Amino acid sequence: MIGRLNHVAIAVPDLEAAAKTYRETLGAKVSPPQAEPAHGVTVVFVELPNTKIELLHPLGANSPIAPFLERNPSGGMHHLCFEVDDILAARDRLKAEGARVLGDGNPKIGAHGKPVLFLHPKDFIGTLIELEQV
Amino acid sequence: MIGRLNHVAIAVPDLEAAAKTYRETLGAKVSPPQAEPAHGVTVVFVELPNTKIELLHPLGANSPIAPFLERNPSGGMHHLCFEVDDILAARDRLKAEGARVLGDGNPKIGAHGKPVLFLHPKDFIGTLIELEQV
Repeated sequence: MIGRLNHVAIAVPDLEAAAKTYRETLGAKVSPPQAEPAHGVTVVFVELPNTKIELLHPLGANSPIAPFLERNPSGGMHHLCFEVDDILAARDRLKAEGARVLGDGNPKIGAHGKPVLFLHPKDFIGTLIELEQV
Repeated sequence: MIGRLNHVAIAVPDLEAAAKTYRETLGAKVSPPQAEPAHGVTVVFVELPNTKIELLHPLGANSPIAPFLERNPSGGMHHLCFEVDDILAARDRLKAEGARVLGDGNPKIGAHGKPVLFLHPKDFIGTLIELEQV
């Protein structure tokens, strides 16, 4: 069912410093910051040859990553995003397997303009998983 | 400098259950468990089209992932591994940038039979980073 690893998301307390670490210390190709007000984050994309790292910083009140940064003030890996062909079929299979889909169970339009769902980390060995239909 | 994301490593308290979650719930291609006594882990590889997830379980005394599982008993994302062409050149650049290389600073032969180094998570936004020469 799951396809490519679309991205690894890392929540960061200082977006400029994190972008500099990936650009200058690790020598990666790093995008300018991109505000995603509908998702409560500002994102910097680290482009690797086979996938992306997304550096996420809270934007506005009620950012979905603010609680994570309160628990992990230095930042850290926040979620993995896997691609799926059919997000409704994936959701129904996951629910039939007993996995919990976060929110109301309906896909939302994610930061890449595509339907996404998040899965409960307790059902996936402590890892928050995003599914994105591609 | 960094190239492909070679793998995302997830430390898991129950390897069989974690493999089943990735195989049956997420529908991924999952390898049989592979003991790596020299590295203190048993590994299950989750093969994705563009990269791998490695499910790591402690093997023997002094497993390097045992302290992580003590702090995170449900498991969780443990490190990211990036590929580099020349690990000694990468190490020297990182040290010149002020980043801390773990251990004695010399590459060891990793679980894939290739030279690896680990970088201090405090220098990389809370993320433990492995570099592997390919």
